Parts: sequence; structure tokens; C-alpha cells
Amino acid sequence: MINKIAILGSGAMGTACGNILLENNHDVIFYGINDNELNDLKNGFNKKYFSNPLFGKFKTTKNLEKAVVDANFIIIAIPSKFIPDVFEKLLNLINKKTIIINVAKGFWPNTNDFIHSKMEKLSSNNKYVIDIVSLLGPSFAIDIINKNITIVNAISKNLVSANKVKKIFSNDWFGVSTNNDVIGAEIGSSFKNILAIASGMMEGLGYSTNTQAALLTFGLKEMKKYAMFLNANVETVYDLCGVGDLILTALSEKSRNYRYGKMFFKNKIDDNLVTVEGLYSLKHVYNQIKKENKKIKLPLIEAIYNLVYNKDNPKKIIKNLMKKI
Amino acid sequence: MINKIAILGSGAMGTACGNILLENNHDVIFYGINDNELNDLKNGFNKKYFSNPLFGKFKTTKNLEKAVVDANFIIIAIPSKFIPDVFEKLLNLINKKTIIINVAKGFWPNTNDFIHSKMEKLSSNNKYVIDIVSLLGPSFAIDIINKNITIVNAISKNLVSANKVKKIFSNDWFGVSTNNDVIGAEIGSSFKNILAIASGMMEGLGYSTNTQAALLTFGLKEMKKYAMFLNANVETVYDLCGVGDLILTALSEKSRNYRYGKMFFKNKIDDNLVTVEGLYSLKHVYNQIKKENKKIKLPLIEAIYNLVYNKDNPKKIIKNLMKKI
Repeated sequence: MINKIAILGSGAMGTACGNILLENNHDVIFYGINDNELNDLKNGFNKKYFSNPLFGKFKTTKNLEKAVVDANFIIIAIPSKFIPDVFEKLLNLINKKTIIINVAKGFWPNTNDFIHSKMEKLSSNNKYVIDIVSLLGPSFAIDIINKNITIVNAISKNLVSANKVKKIFSNDWFGVSTNNDVIGAEIGSSFKNILAIASGMMEGLGYSTNTQAALLTFGLKEMKKYAMFLNANVETVYDLCGVGDLILTALSEKSRNYRYGKMFFKNKIDDNLVTVEGLYSLKHVYNQIKKENKKIKLPLIEAIYNLVYNKDNPKKIIKNLMKKI
Repeated sequence: MINKIAILGSGAMGTACGNILLENNHDVIFYGINDNELNDLKNGFNKKYFSNPLFGKFKTTKNLEKAVVDANFIIIAIPSKFIPDVFEKLLNLINKKTIIINVAKGFWPNTNDFIHSKMEKLSSNNKYVIDIVSLLGPSFAIDIINKNITIVNAISKNLVSANKVKKIFSNDWFGVSTNNDVIGAEIGSSFKNILAIASGMMEGLGYSTNTQAALLTFGLKEMKKYAMFLNANVETVYDLCGVGDLILTALSEKSRNYRYGKMFFKNKIDDNLVTVEGLYSLKHVYNQIKKENKKIKLPLIEAIYNLVYNKDNPKKIIKNLMKKI
């Protein structure tokens, strides 16, 4: 069955999703606001992000209504700061039963809600939204464009919907594994950005992979503690959206969070890196554990917070952590 | 307290251990059979492995008895194929209460016993051997020599002994976390070598870190299944000797297992790589699951076995695995 799929956002991840879905023979249309990117997509490229040609040429529009009308699936692949506005408009435009697919990680702007959960809340009274499904896991967009084997989680409270998303995306080189633990997945995918900052910091300080491997092991233990604290399923910490994405993000310069950490002590952070997701997640998790001080302790998260926001001396911080082992 | 510590073996990991212990002000003596390496150590170097000078000059001997007499701790840091012979001699030479520290991973030669467990069995009637303690975790020797922060597990059924080992090794940049799950630790440190071969294969086939991150996530799931099957503590899979060592080994060319995997499909494997530990662990784990076919299924391990030993087509193998997601 050919599905009509609207992709909102012409950035790297939206384009990567479109490329998979076009190869899988679906009817794909991009909605965007950037003329250059949309023109490129019409011609089978997206040169701002990828030097290679895409699988084919795409339909595009700058009219949100035209994009989403009659869509079976709507993929939201725009920067999180623009999501609230677009999501509200979207809910007023859809005119038939549809599944909304989210690929953004972390928190809804200016709230303490995870993005997926907030989308669920906002759409709960909309008769056309069947479910929210998030696609999360180890997946650099460039590697998807290059058809490297990639496997991600499709997360939804309703596994029937997660399985529908699995069906449209799956092929020989792109795999989807379903999981119904929304909170666990959101914890994993925001926590890993915090650890990517810390791992980048270790490289910035001149340490090697011995140090990063130890950091990530203790980071995973705190991720698990946090997941238990929020009543998530602990197994999700060890799924693709947890440890899988951590292994990818926290050891690679392709991650903005990692690059931010690496440059942190050089005091010349690229302006593009000031809005890295991990910073917001760090503040959020730290404030939460401080508020509930007696119930949960995450010494590593506290240490990273003190490095980033209180400019504590890294040698002193590390010495203190080593004493607690 | 200054301890007399004998290190058997003048290779990379023995030298790294000696360097930590000398900095920690212990009385260290190396036993070895290689004149060049021993002469180097006497002068504060070990040029075969490290270009940098060591922390100081070491006592050395080619006489095993002289090394182990009056030692409070004896570290066994020799290639596993020589362990049975040296271990037997050792048991006849020790003359006072001592803790034996093992840094080797995997299986005792020509048996299905893990090295630590076999040492426990063989020494159980020896009145001088207090305990066997294994030091396992993410720790490339070169990074230890460079004083990169490194944290490992000290594993022993008896945590009092593990804590004694922790005490002699710990300092500002080398940390030790105790764990009493011997079987879990041995599973982790042999399983990760198998996964390092597979991860290297993925690079050899031209895939990227998306693919490796997915592979390692599913590999961890099978490691956990295997740990449960052998009645180990599942948490050990996520400790330094499990996921920590996996993150280090399975993504780095510093690992022989990884290099073996990377070269595998090029049909020109360096002779030095023919005895990589992961190959033996793979055969062992595969034979065990085949024997108990109905009780445990590890499709990824089976696939790796078929790639390595049956020269199955990798595209076919991967296609089959993708169908099972």
C-alpha cells in the first residue's frame, strides 16, 4: 500500500526520512520554509546537508495545509523551538485519521514536558490524530543517506501504531524495533546528550577512551536510576534509544553536544553550539533531582552541572568523583 | 603500608600495572623471560610497547621463586597460553599468604573454564592463596601509561580481597570498583571480544557507526540473556567489565579483535591476529548454545559464528538478521 506521507521540515533528518520512504515507494511531500532547500529537494538533492544526490526527486510545498491534507502519516522534523507553533497549526489542518511521527529529542520549549508527551497531551482531543510515534535511536542523518545499516526504535504507547510506522520505514538496510515505554525513551534520548557533552569535555581535557568508557558506564547507571525514579521501564535504558544512541552520540564529533563539550574549556565556543539540546536537558534533570534531593542522587549529573553552569575546576570535580568510586 | 607485589609478565598490561603500583609507592618486582623487556624495565622503560619513559626503574628477575617469595600480591599478566604452566609452578613456590590478581580475559587454554574460575579451582587447596581477584574493565595499557583516567572492576567472590586490591591500585587517576559476580564479569569480558570482531567486520564492510551502535545494542541484549542463562548477576553486564569494556574495545583499532574483524573480508589477515581471544570465545559460546538449543537462542552470536567459521555471505546474514527485528 502506498501511503501519503507529509514531512514537515527540510533539514538533515527530515531529508533522511524522506529518502527512506521514497525508496520504499511511498508518496512523500515536504513542507518547508527555506526556498533553497525545497528547490534542491525538487531536484533530488539537499546540498546544504549532503553532497550526494538523494534517491529521487521530491514533491515540496510551502503551504502547510497542502502538505498535510489527506496524509496518513505526518513526520515532524523541524527544530524543537519551532515545534509548538507548527504543531498547533497542524492540529487545525488535518482532515483525516493520521499518525504523527516525531523525530525530535528532549524537552518541549519553555516547559518541563518531553516533546512526545506534550504532543500526546495537545492532540488527545483531536479526533484525527490516531497516535504519536517517536522514531529514536542511533541514526546520524548522513549515514542514513549513505544507506548504512541503521536500526531505530519506534516508540508509542500504542504498539499497533508503532508497528504501522515500522512497516512504512523498514527495508533491507533500515530496521525499526518497537517499544511502548515513552518515558524511558525520552529519558534515554535526552540523558545521552548530557553525557555526550561530558564525554566531549574529557577529550577536551586530553583524556582518552579509557576515561570516556568509564564515564559512559557510570552515566548509564545514573540513567537507569533516573528511569526507575520516573517509573520508566529500566530495559528501555538498554534499547536503541538509550545505550544505542549513547554509544553513537557520546563518542563522535558528528554530535553537536560532543563538540560543545570538547570546546568547552577552550572558551571559544562556536555560536552554533550555544543551543545544544544537552544543555537544556542538563538544567532540567539537575533542577529535578535538587527538588527531590532525598529521593534520588545523581553525582555525575551534579558534577557535569557544576562544570557547565558554575565553571567549577575540572580537576577538583574529577578528584571528588574518583573518591566516590 | 608498602606491599611486596610480584608481577608475572613484562608485557603491556603487566608494565601498566607496575607503573601504577610504583607511583603508589609499593615494592614491585617483575618476573619475565624476555631479556630485552626486563633490561628496559630495570632502566625505567619498556620500549617494545611504550615510547614514553615509565614512572621509575623496576626490580626484575628471571627466577620465578625469587619474584614470588614473600609477595603479598602476585599479578598474573602473561599471555593466556602460558598461564597453566606458570600457575602450577607458582602454587608450589608461594610461602606466605597472598592474593593472586588476574588480568587475563576469556578461557583457560583447552578447557571450557573461564580463567578466573579455573584459578579458583586449582588454588582452592593451597593454604597460602587467600583469594583470586581479577582486574577487568575499559583499560588500554597505553592510556594507563599516559595517566589517562581509568576505572576498572576488581572482581572476587570475596569483597574483602577485592577491596585490598582496590586499595593498592587506587589513586587520583586510577579507580577501582569492586564486584563479587565472577561469572558475570567473565561473560562480559569474553563476550565483548566477540562483539569487537563483529563491529570491526562492519567497518570492513564499509558501514558506519549507526550500524555499529545498533550491533552493540543487540549484542548487549544477548550478553544479558547469556548472563541470565549462566545465573550471573545481570547488573554486571552493565558494569565496567561489561558495557564499559565493550564501548572501549568494540569501537577501536587498538583492539586486536576489532582489527581482526576489520581485515576479515580482505582475506589477508595478519598472522599476529590469528590467535585473537574473541575467536575462541565465539566458538565456546556457540557450542554451548547449540548444545542447549531449546533453552537459549542468541541469533547474533550464531550469525557471527557463521560469518567467521562457515564463511557465509555477509549480505545474506545481515538480511536475515534485519528480518528478525
